[in-house]
Formats: sequence, structure tokens, C-alpha cells
Amino acid sequence: MPEGLNMSRRIRRTPYTDRVEAAGVTGFSVVNHMLLPKAFQRTVEEDYWHLREHVQIWDVSCQRQVCIAGPDAERLVQLMTPRKVTGAKVGQCLYIPIVDHAGGLINDPVLLKIAPTTFWLSIADSDVLLYALGLATGYNLDVDVSEPDVHPLAIQGPKAEDLLASLFGDHIREIGFFRFGHFDFQGTRQLIARSGYSRQGGFEIYLDDSALGGALWDAIWQAGAAYNIAPGCPNLIERIEGGLFSYGNEMTRVNNPFEIGLGKYLCLDGSIDCVGINALRVIAEEGPHQEIRGVQFDGAPCPTCAIPWPVIADNSTQIGQITSAICSPRLKRNIGLSMISKEYWDPGTKVTVLTSDGLARSGTISNLPFA
Amino acid sequence: MPEGLNMSRRIRRTPYTDRVEAAGVTGFSVVNHMLLPKAFQRTVEEDYWHLREHVQIWDVSCQRQVCIAGPDAERLVQLMTPRKVTGAKVGQCLYIPIVDHAGGLINDPVLLKIAPTTFWLSIADSDVLLYALGLATGYNLDVDVSEPDVHPLAIQGPKAEDLLASLFGDHIREIGFFRFGHFDFQGTRQLIARSGYSRQGGFEIYLDDSALGGALWDAIWQAGAAYNIAPGCPNLIERIEGGLFSYGNEMTRVNNPFEIGLGKYLCLDGSIDCVGINALRVIAEEGPHQEIRGVQFDGAPCPTCAIPWPVIADNSTQIGQITSAICSPRLKRNIGLSMISKEYWDPGTKVTVLTSDGLARSGTISNLPFA
Repeated sequence: MPEGLNMSRRIRRTPYTDRVEAAGVTGFSVVNHMLLPKAFQRTVEEDYWHLREHVQIWDVSCQRQVCIAGPDAERLVQLMTPRKVTGAKVGQCLYIPIVDHAGGLINDPVLLKIAPTTFWLSIADSDVLLYALGLATGYNLDVDVSEPDVHPLAIQGPKAEDLLASLFGDHIREIGFFRFGHFDFQGTRQLIARSGYSRQGGFEIYLDDSALGGALWDAIWQAGAAYNIAPGCPNLIERIEGGLFSYGNEMTRVNNPFEIGLGKYLCLDGSIDCVGINALRVIAEEGPHQEIRGVQFDGAPCPTCAIPWPVIADNSTQIGQITSAICSPRLKRNIGLSMISKEYWDPGTKVTVLTSDGLARSGTISNLPFA
Repeated sequence: MPEGLNMSRRIRRTPYTDRVEAAGVTGFSVVNHMLLPKAFQRTVEEDYWHLREHVQIWDVSCQRQVCIAGPDAERLVQLMTPRKVTGAKVGQCLYIPIVDHAGGLINDPVLLKIAPTTFWLSIADSDVLLYALGLATGYNLDVDVSEPDVHPLAIQGPKAEDLLASLFGDHIREIGFFRFGHFDFQGTRQLIARSGYSRQGGFEIYLDDSALGGALWDAIWQAGAAYNIAPGCPNLIERIEGGLFSYGNEMTRVNNPFEIGLGKYLCLDGSIDCVGINALRVIAEEGPHQEIRGVQFDGAPCPTCAIPWPVIADNSTQIGQITSAICSPRLKRNIGLSMISKEYWDPGTKVTVLTSDGLARSGTISNLPFA
């Protein structure tokens, strides 16, 4: 049993928390000052197999939206990201790094272009709204920065499309990956994107009205019975196998976008005005000193990785640290994610992982996603 | 038993977490992406009486420091707060509201003036560092904004002074309230302030080197045996009785400094350059529409207040919402904190509180702190 989480208003409940509790949640995390369900009554492994075969409903309200709207909205978004935003179409999602003046990562949200001068940033765990407010004030931009009453609900797994088509109609099947459309729910217009924090396919419903949370959950739950729906949450086995990163775990402000494999998305040709662009051009010229990789390692199923575990090569050189890890029942190995120094990042490199149970385990550097 | 908190690197451990676990912690909260112990094996009431009579050691590392240093440091701090910073002396602490352009509260840290061009903001639960970074970049200021390796450890209770004098010498007794000095710990220079999140007196040690965390905890623990020391944490009974507020609970960005009683600290005479000052002058002219008050209310000990509870007057008018509440064993009443509409905020006003257990309880508006 994990140690308890003490509740208060500051740790915000979501429009779905009542339903999540009724579904038997046993553990939470806290993201953006909001509850994120992290465990139900089944094991992580049982949830993993279920997610790969059926469909799950996830309360990811903690993916708060930072709404940037107004004549200078695109300028402000571009100031925060080195990925080119101009040219994105309404209805499109973009995975964008948010950086500081030194190119350090502040967040890695999904950007939704809602209208020509309205953007949502669907954020990981840091107060991007405060960064945007500071920049908007300092640059004296004509924008409004706010957190709307939008609470994403993810429907993930191979049966997600059939389930949502049964509720919202076959038009849902036409939404492309990282695109969104609008659909009717009980007379309201709701945004649904083909996206989500798994590699099993699915959608995220950006419910715009918290008062409808219970009704939306119930409608999906009832229609989902035919598809063997279960309550779930981002699955640690699935996300590590799939090479999906978590801000605050795999990267912090000491890391840059190159280190998490986003170099190919950056616009370094001088055509955009981003606060970190000059620093990133210097890094691009030198090349990053480390990059994220997979690490497979031996031994009994590893414990929870709550403190980074050193990754060692040549018997004594620390070449990285594992920041998320778990035993994969499919690969029948422990797997983890780690920044790895340049000299050692080639797949196949032999390493030693010092896990928090005191063991030194033999391991191998691997490409991501894991095969 | 509360629901579990799932651990990961993103929910940062502190230099004292090992010791806190050894001392029998049973519950945590998460503040600034870091663990805050919230419960040990004794009840909140037992801890309350102990705190009033003896001394406790609290891991408040989550009070992260935002260090602002450089030629424009004072200008940046002043841009963020409507309290006058000019004139503060090195060695002084100031409780300052941090506001946005509209005067909305972003945080309520304690400012420490470390040197003429170096300030620390000891923050509540929001990423003030990102706001400061955005402003510094937008205004093109010559400052460095960082989070140093500083982890506050609070020593609270009436025996705190004797305990710290036994460790650091009698010079500690000369530190005035909201002042700090530097003291030797194992050959290192450490900052100690007379401050803390209780009304029982005490100090906060701003340990500057996480590697010394275990040694500092152990030294205090051993010397504390003579003073009946116990592990503790901000005590909900004591803080509500004492009228100490919690950012994210009692106030959010929709509130302004007047509403939490800070009007008297603001500098509205046009002599400072703060981003929210014009908005605050308008609010000052109109007067705030609500202000925080205490509410005493009847019935059996109330449940945990995880969702705000409506406060009703005249049978049907909602005049506020309680955001933190508990039963006081000393006052033998339930007590809570609530913003209250102007027409109803006079002490003695009769109200009804709708607690989350479905009861309607009779109550009375009270001044703060509670008698």
C-alpha cells in the first residue's frame, strides 16, 4: 500500500473524480495541482493487457488547457516554442516543446489550433500559464491567457473508435491522427481529437463544461459495456515500451528538445521568433551531449523508480540515470528510460543499472520505442 | 486510510524524506512538485497539543526558493509585487503577494533579501519561477532566475529557541521575527530565519546543500530529545485557528491581495512599478467585494474539506465558501476559513454551512485569528 495522499481544495478534484472513486481507484498522482488516477483494483500488468486488447476510459483532466487568444496569440505561442507554428491549420494538433531563453524545457504540451487567433496548450506538469502571462506582460502583447473549464477525458485502446462511433456517429472515424473535430453531446458542441498518451490508438474528449462530467462518463461507460470497457490511466508498462516521455520524469528544465528527440521538429533557419532560438542553434551546431534511450536490464521485476537510478558503463563511469522503469511482461525484461551520454548511446552498448533495492543489474542500451 | 499517492521522480523527494519515512509518516501532500509530509502516526489533534507545548521538526522543502539575482533583481521582484521592496534590508523577510497584470494572486511567498541584488522567494504552490522567467525575458532584464539547492527545515513550537540555541549558540536568540542570520553547521554557513507556518514561534533553516539533509535532521533530532521533539508538519487545527492561509486553498488567481487582508501592505501611491498596480488601485477605490473571515459552526466534527462548502445567509443566499475546515479541540467547535461577501462579513453574522456529509450546520462569522 502506498503512503496516503492528503486531500484539500488545492489538490483539485475533477468533473470525473466521483466516477473514478466509484470505479475503485486505489491511487492518485498530482499533476498541475489536480488529481490524476494512477491505479485501480487490478494490477498494472492486468491493465496493460486490457489496454492493448479493449478500451479504457481515463480521467486526464490534469492535462489543463492554457488558452491563448487574441491578435498576438500566434506570436506568443511562437515565442514559447522553437517548432514553427505558422502554417498550422485550425483543427490540427502539434506536439511542441516549450522552452526558456536558454532552450531548457519548460513543458511539452500538445498545441491545438482552435481558431486563427485562439490556441490551447494541453500541458504536462508545470504552470505554463504563468510563463505565458509573464511573457505576455513583458512583451506587452494583445492576448488573453486563461485556463478554460475544459477537462480532457481519454478513450484509449483498439476498440476506442468503435465505441465513440456508437456514441457520436461514424464521422468520428474520419478524424486523422493529431486532428480534431467537433461533435454533439446532449446539445453541446465538444472537441474530440485523435490523440492520447498511449500507443494503442484512441481519442481525447476535451469536455468544455465541467457540469457535464458525470453525464459524459456515464454515457461512455454504458456504451462501453459492449466493448469490455474498464477504468484506466496512463499505463507505465505501455508508455515505457512505447517511448512516451513524462515531463518532470524523463526531462526537466536542465534538458533541451534535442535530448528528447525533437531536433527534427525545430525551426532553426532564422524564420521564427522564439525566446530560446539562439541558444538552441548553438546546441544544434555542437550536437547534444546526451539523448534519451531505452535500457533493458536483468533480474527480478524492479522496484518503483522514485529516485533516478545510475546507469554505469566501463565499470565506473556514470553515463545516465533511469527516470522511469518497470518490468515488461511481454518483453520479459525490466525496461527503463534514461538520458545517455553520446559516447555510449548506441543500441547494444552494455551497461550496469544500480536499482534502489541495492542490486547492480546487467543491461543494454536500446532504441525507442522498445521492439 | 486515504487513497494512495503513486511515487515517481516527478513528485520530488527531499533531502529529509528518508528520515520522515523512518519517523513514521503516513500521508503526504504534493506542493511545488515535491513531497510535503502531512500526517504521522498520531492524530492531528495529538500533534496540535504537542506543537503548542513542545517542539516539532517539519520537512518544508517544498517551500522552494526562487532566486532572483543580478543588477535588475530588485526591479523584477518589484514588478511582481505591489508591496514596496525598496528599503528592505539585507537580513529581512517580507510576506509579499505576487500578482498578475489584473492584480490576481499568483502566490504569497516570503521574500528574503539575501544581498542588495539577490533575493529569494520562498514560495507556496505555484511555479513562480516560470512567471519570473517570462517577465525577465519579456522586459529584457539583466537577472538570473534559478531554483537553488536549498531545502527549508522548520523547527516550530515554544521550545524551538532553546533547542536551536543548544545547537547553534545563544546568538540565535537575537534573531528578530522575520529576520535571518547565518550560522555554522558542520563547517558550512547556513541561513536561519525566525519564521514558519505556525503561530507557536520557531525558525526555518534554509539548508543550502541537500547532501547535508540527513546530518541536519539527525543533529536536531538528537538535541531535540531533551525538548520532547516530535516529527510534524503544518497543523490544520493550528493554522486555521491562527488564520494562516494556504495558496490554492483560501485563494487563487481569481482573488486579490485585499481579499486576504493584505491591503495595508500595498504601495498604491504611484511610487512603484508593479505589473498589477493600476488594477489594484481601481480595486482599492471601489473596495473589495469580499474578504476572508473565520466561520464557526455546529455539529459533530466536520469531515475533510476537499471541495469548498457553501456558506449561506438569509436562508438562500450564498455569501461564501469554506475552503479549509476542521474541529478545534480547544474551541470545541468546527472552524473554517471562507471568503465572505461584504454585506455579511461582520463578526457575529449568522450563517449556514453546507458540509460535504450532507448536513446544514448553523454557524457564525468570526474575526481572524480565532480567539
